[in-house]
Amino acid sequence: MGNRVNTEKKSRVNVELDCPIKMPKASGFLWNKKMVVQVNCRGYVNSQYMQPEPRKYSYAPNIEEKTFIQPEHNYFTHHPARFFYIKDEDLKHCFSVPYEPMRVTLDKFSFVQTSSEIYWLIEHLDLSIKIAISLSKHDIVERWSLSVKNLRRNGGKRNISIYPYFTVGYMSWMNQSARFDEELNGIVASAVTPYQKVAQYFKNKELKDKTYFLADKKPIAWHTNQFTFEGEGGLYAPDALKELTLSNDDARYETPVAVVQYRESLAEHESTTFQFLFGPAKDELEISTISKRYFGETKQEKAQKDYDDYIAQGKACLKINTEDTEFDDFINHWLPRQMFYHGDVNRLSTDPQTRNYVQDNMGMCYINPNVARNALILALSQQLLSGAMPDGILLHEQAELKYINQIPHADHCVWLPICLAVYLNETGDVDLLSAKIPFADSDKSKTFSEHIMLALDWLLKATDHRGLSLIEQGDWCDPMNMVGYKGKGVSSWLSLATACALNTWCDLCEEYAINISMKKCADYRLAALTMNKAVNSYFWADNWFARGITDENRIFGTAKDNEGQIYLNPQSWAMLSGAASPEQQQLMIKAITEQLMTPYGVMMLAPSYTSMVEDIGRITQKHPGVSENGSVYNHAAIFYAYSLYQVNENDLAFDVLKKIIPSLDNADKSGQLAVFVPNYYRGAYYQYPEQAGRSSQLFNTGTLAWLYRCLVEELCGLKGGNGVLYVAPKLPSCLNRISGQRLFRGAKLVYVIEKSIQIDKLETYLDGKLRPDNQLTNLEIDKTYQVHILVPAND
Amino acid sequence: MGNRVNTEKKSRVNVELDCPIKMPKASGFLWNKKMVVQVNCRGYVNSQYMQPEPRKYSYAPNIEEKTFIQPEHNYFTHHPARFFYIKDEDLKHCFSVPYEPMRVTLDKFSFVQTSSEIYWLIEHLDLSIKIAISLSKHDIVERWSLSVKNLRRNGGKRNISIYPYFTVGYMSWMNQSARFDEELNGIVASAVTPYQKVAQYFKNKELKDKTYFLADKKPIAWHTNQFTFEGEGGLYAPDALKELTLSNDDARYETPVAVVQYRESLAEHESTTFQFLFGPAKDELEISTISKRYFGETKQEKAQKDYDDYIAQGKACLKINTEDTEFDDFINHWLPRQMFYHGDVNRLSTDPQTRNYVQDNMGMCYINPNVARNALILALSQQLLSGAMPDGILLHEQAELKYINQIPHADHCVWLPICLAVYLNETGDVDLLSAKIPFADSDKSKTFSEHIMLALDWLLKATDHRGLSLIEQGDWCDPMNMVGYKGKGVSSWLSLATACALNTWCDLCEEYAINISMKKCADYRLAALTMNKAVNSYFWADNWFARGITDENRIFGTAKDNEGQIYLNPQSWAMLSGAASPEQQQLMIKAITEQLMTPYGVMMLAPSYTSMVEDIGRITQKHPGVSENGSVYNHAAIFYAYSLYQVNENDLAFDVLKKIIPSLDNADKSGQLAVFVPNYYRGAYYQYPEQAGRSSQLFNTGTLAWLYRCLVEELCGLKGGNGVLYVAPKLPSCLNRISGQRLFRGAKLVYVIEKSIQIDKLETYLDGKLRPDNQLTNLEIDKTYQVHILVPAND
Repeated sequence: MGNRVNTEKKSRVNVELDCPIKMPKASGFLWNKKMVVQVNCRGYVNSQYMQPEPRKYSYAPNIEEKTFIQPEHNYFTHHPARFFYIKDEDLKHCFSVPYEPMRVTLDKFSFVQTSSEIYWLIEHLDLSIKIAISLSKHDIVERWSLSVKNLRRNGGKRNISIYPYFTVGYMSWMNQSARFDEELNGIVASAVTPYQKVAQYFKNKELKDKTYFLADKKPIAWHTNQFTFEGEGGLYAPDALKELTLSNDDARYETPVAVVQYRESLAEHESTTFQFLFGPAKDELEISTISKRYFGETKQEKAQKDYDDYIAQGKACLKINTEDTEFDDFINHWLPRQMFYHGDVNRLSTDPQTRNYVQDNMGMCYINPNVARNALILALSQQLLSGAMPDGILLHEQAELKYINQIPHADHCVWLPICLAVYLNETGDVDLLSAKIPFADSDKSKTFSEHIMLALDWLLKATDHRGLSLIEQGDWCDPMNMVGYKGKGVSSWLSLATACALNTWCDLCEEYAINISMKKCADYRLAALTMNKAVNSYFWADNWFARGITDENRIFGTAKDNEGQIYLNPQSWAMLSGAASPEQQQLMIKAITEQLMTPYGVMMLAPSYTSMVEDIGRITQKHPGVSENGSVYNHAAIFYAYSLYQVNENDLAFDVLKKIIPSLDNADKSGQLAVFVPNYYRGAYYQYPEQAGRSSQLFNTGTLAWLYRCLVEELCGLKGGNGVLYVAPKLPSCLNRISGQRLFRGAKLVYVIEKSIQIDKLETYLDGKLRPDNQLTNLEIDKTYQVHILVPAND
Repeated sequence: MGNRVNTEKKSRVNVELDCPIKMPKASGFLWNKKMVVQVNCRGYVNSQYMQPEPRKYSYAPNIEEKTFIQPEHNYFTHHPARFFYIKDEDLKHCFSVPYEPMRVTLDKFSFVQTSSEIYWLIEHLDLSIKIAISLSKHDIVERWSLSVKNLRRNGGKRNISIYPYFTVGYMSWMNQSARFDEELNGIVASAVTPYQKVAQYFKNKELKDKTYFLADKKPIAWHTNQFTFEGEGGLYAPDALKELTLSNDDARYETPVAVVQYRESLAEHESTTFQFLFGPAKDELEISTISKRYFGETKQEKAQKDYDDYIAQGKACLKINTEDTEFDDFINHWLPRQMFYHGDVNRLSTDPQTRNYVQDNMGMCYINPNVARNALILALSQQLLSGAMPDGILLHEQAELKYINQIPHADHCVWLPICLAVYLNETGDVDLLSAKIPFADSDKSKTFSEHIMLALDWLLKATDHRGLSLIEQGDWCDPMNMVGYKGKGVSSWLSLATACALNTWCDLCEEYAINISMKKCADYRLAALTMNKAVNSYFWADNWFARGITDENRIFGTAKDNEGQIYLNPQSWAMLSGAASPEQQQLMIKAITEQLMTPYGVMMLAPSYTSMVEDIGRITQKHPGVSENGSVYNHAAIFYAYSLYQVNENDLAFDVLKKIIPSLDNADKSGQLAVFVPNYYRGAYYQYPEQAGRSSQLFNTGTLAWLYRCLVEELCGLKGGNGVLYVAPKLPSCLNRISGQRLFRGAKLVYVIEKSIQIDKLETYLDGKLRPDNQLTNLEIDKTYQVHILVPAND
């Protein structure tokens, strides 16, 4: 088996990979508020930190463009890495761990991701080696440890050289150098970030332009010069390792590297352990502070404990036990962890897309609703008085709208009431709605409710003569940028999402008795109805809803198209908005099943485009089956699952949802560890079957909050309302029982949901007492309740 | 010897390197108007083409930032390359040529740059291999050939597999793929250049987003997928080569590569030859056109002939014979070639810096003065009515001022009369001066002369209360950007250069009887004098001129500074402007000799800065000894040589000049082939002696025109005037005789310059007749003259 789930202790859920070859791109990730590291099973590392924009301290061998993390990231020999060369000085054998760059077949290999640590257990040449990396709670530092143990039972002492190799890489064409600092006991590489304008100098002054590699033990020698270290042997067999002792080379306007040498004599079963710290700093003083803060056993333990505690904040409100351990672990552990990562560090962006920011905080409603509350307020405070939301939310005073946030997208307002629904369902905090919130372009302030309604009014205004939503240069689908760039094109999805947003708001107003005028509410209901009708009259074609009408007045996403014939999102949201009749729903579902369903999940569209369509745009230029161009784009897939639950297609919903979750079953194809939901699996299943199912390896995705919502509100059916918890589980045929725990507004519900052939209507027992309406009320903070839910077996 | 000069035939001057290890960064370069390739001796290649801005078709393994070529370019395993793996199928031995990535020690190795071709001659495993690359005159295509010959005298047929490996690399995160195209008989990699804004799409539509690799013979198999090609073996020992036949893999959103396989049976002394074409194209049709245009023996010969003829345009007006073959070859051949590259393609920029553009065209005066004429007119047509010159000259309607051209530099006007002097000296074309030329910001037009005087007036106005030139954010020295960014700082160099420009203009007016008012001329002379005086009163400190006075009113470049104590340029230009008295000159020269002179040339400043000086700027942040921060910056060094000639320091001038020219003598240190003048050799000689002398390997430099001017007007002393050629050679002690040829305004002068102990005054004989004034007049077009020049031996 390539990877396996290993529940060591109840509190620690590890995922393990026992081979460096089968899934070469498999990786885990660690983060704190200031940095993120993606650690590849073979020893390559992608690391970034915020200052305030994302920056590197371990660089490529050339000047890399600053971009977001690439899907299906490409690794290559000189990719930033953390290796350890180990040389048996007696046998003159050398190998590298964890695997790169020597790629020796190791006797034992295990790559393990835990919540707050990534480590390898390796055996080779009768040595047992453990390499581990963790972070700190507050600092920008990689905390590494290495221990090497002699497993040989006889033969006396062994002489081993150990060489940590940490990539510094091509730092700067202006100035780069590295040297060993005796006082710091480590290598300090220094650079000047290139710039040309004077004003930039003053900004750059504060940058952490040094990269440090510190060791807790004094090495016997070191090397900081990439070129002379490698020599003609290359990274595979560096010339520097052919000598008994490293040559203590500086790098002077030469690509730096951090390599040190330890020579150890290990008796039978003797072991030796090292600690290393690696990261960026402004100056030696800062490096010294880091050194003092993290070296020493007690400090290390403290640092690990603090970091464990930080990561442990990524716990959410639901625990489930379905007896499928892998599934349960993912839901109980990895999903909340990933959701917390999104909510806590906002994808390491200072200007997250509004859509992402709002949905990521929808996930935070299940972890720490107060964070979501503040995020909603921050987002609305950047709203324009017109009701329009900006394309990105600025999180930092120096932040500015960059890249995709400079392109006008029409959907941002949609997410506000939807995220609010989850927030209110989890908290019941109606007070939020009367909070006064300012605007980006006005001195006025209005209540939260008024802001929401301005957003809805803006959506209603941003429609054409047919009452359909103008798409501008994109809706949820970023690269659908040329459908409406001339100002005419409309989006069926956005029209449906607008209807859905309107209904959601009205539902909330009703459920939570929000104080808005009856007239306004009725108007919104009518507007939603009208929107749904318009969508029906313009977009229903064949047996599904088309995706849009372009500036050229061309409808697309219908059977008449050779490519992009059917899109998933309009179908899902037609179910959510109420636009689709039960008959239409069945036709749509059938079409999706036939055209979009694959063993790896449901594709976002099919067939994938193979060439540019100029009135659709950039999406059609992406590689077929990749990203928005017909991959199993999990964000879209979970919309579909959620919509299926709304129309009680519980089996299908569960099937779609299950395929989103990485597992052993799909690891061979996906090539990723079951520690995060990727943003996509390759689609174009019928066009490029060989690549289909392959993971993007990207752990930034809008999928998570919706996935969690499906689990909480739909699968387990434990959904909050105004002073109430509604009980309505939606078990699929394949699942007869779920037990677990639901935290709800401070109360703890220990629940069992099980099918019973003895009933024909749902029955809910709270502490043994039947609740005839399947509603739990008067739950008290800090109290624990037993909830027993019986579901008719033949439902 | 690492490299040697090999004058095969009179018409072909080759430079050869016999080892791939000793000078691993050694490279040659080829270009045409649309592209440039820098070919490293080990098989790595930097290639760029213009569309209209510089772009790649052979990419790095990651997303590389678009920057100018880096000094001391860093090579790494997956750097863009053109390799050939060769496998002896019987012996199962495999190696790669020219050297990378397998790095096998070859029996014979020779890397050769000729004018218009780069090739390798290699012997290994009893195979003789020739690899060659050349370009075409007009297209963007690398024309490669490979021949393999069986050297074995017995043993019957040998079975060989040959695998060209051409890097395509990471093309795009939006879309990248590759496949073998049977019809084209080659590999076509396709990509979509990433973008986000709609407007960009319409620009990008025309891009050559495909990379093709075409072969003239049908391969038996192919591979286009970098990752599966390498497998666990890596580039050193690719898995794909372990099989008998390549597996014909596509790349589908996977990093593409172009590899094909040939299997050949070679009898004794049998050989086989292949042709390959590699480059970017918009579509298959364009690729097909390239294929038809260049495959086939006749077409290849024609293409090579056309390209030879193109490169052969890089001939200039002087041939010398000093009996130092290496020196002569460089002057006669490589220097004009490099000068032509600069003048013909403007460093592959669409907005060359004005300073570079004007000086590069100063070089064209010696090759094709008409090009220089047009360039001067184009430059002046972008002048503002105020007289100010823009920071860059836009060569293309879509071009815009980028990077460094967005920073205001104060020196651009200076170069106009200086370049004009060379133009007039070479052509006598005074008509140019009355040409009417428009402005960038006005409908008016004025004569060339008036434009020049506006530039001079602007320089005189851009001075402070002391009459010193304001430096703004830099002068000739780009990164000296914080001396005057607050509007107060002044530059001694720019003041001197202004005086020099004024005098140059007045000299021209006198020499060529240019029709300007006497008053104006007298004013300029006075202004130059006043400027020189001001420089003397404010900058003469210690025994040399300081470099500037900062915004903070701090003088720098004096003995009081710990770093940047002495700068070369103010000394050189004080000699050029007439500011320095003979006594001062001797003091300056002494200081330079003591503090700036090194075995590798004269440093631009010393000691190099080791940390930021906030009232000087970016130059102080560059690595010590690199680029402007105290390297042997050849552009500055040649200014010094030229100025030494003006004060008849002929020995020292020749010494400085000679050290600029790469040669066998300095190859061990410089690490570069003697085929181009690099922009710098590492300086900081006393601070970092180990790196001192190392070449930047950059062949873009303003040095060339000045170097050529020194040779023509000073060393050989054959300088044009108004209807006259002045004869005044300045032979150094070490050189007793130069013979050669001087083309001058259509006449051909076959000259001999030699020292004679029998005379005490220069004697010039034209066709045997003594010219008592040492002036040659009435030279006629298309006529050949014999010129015999006797120089007093004890001069």
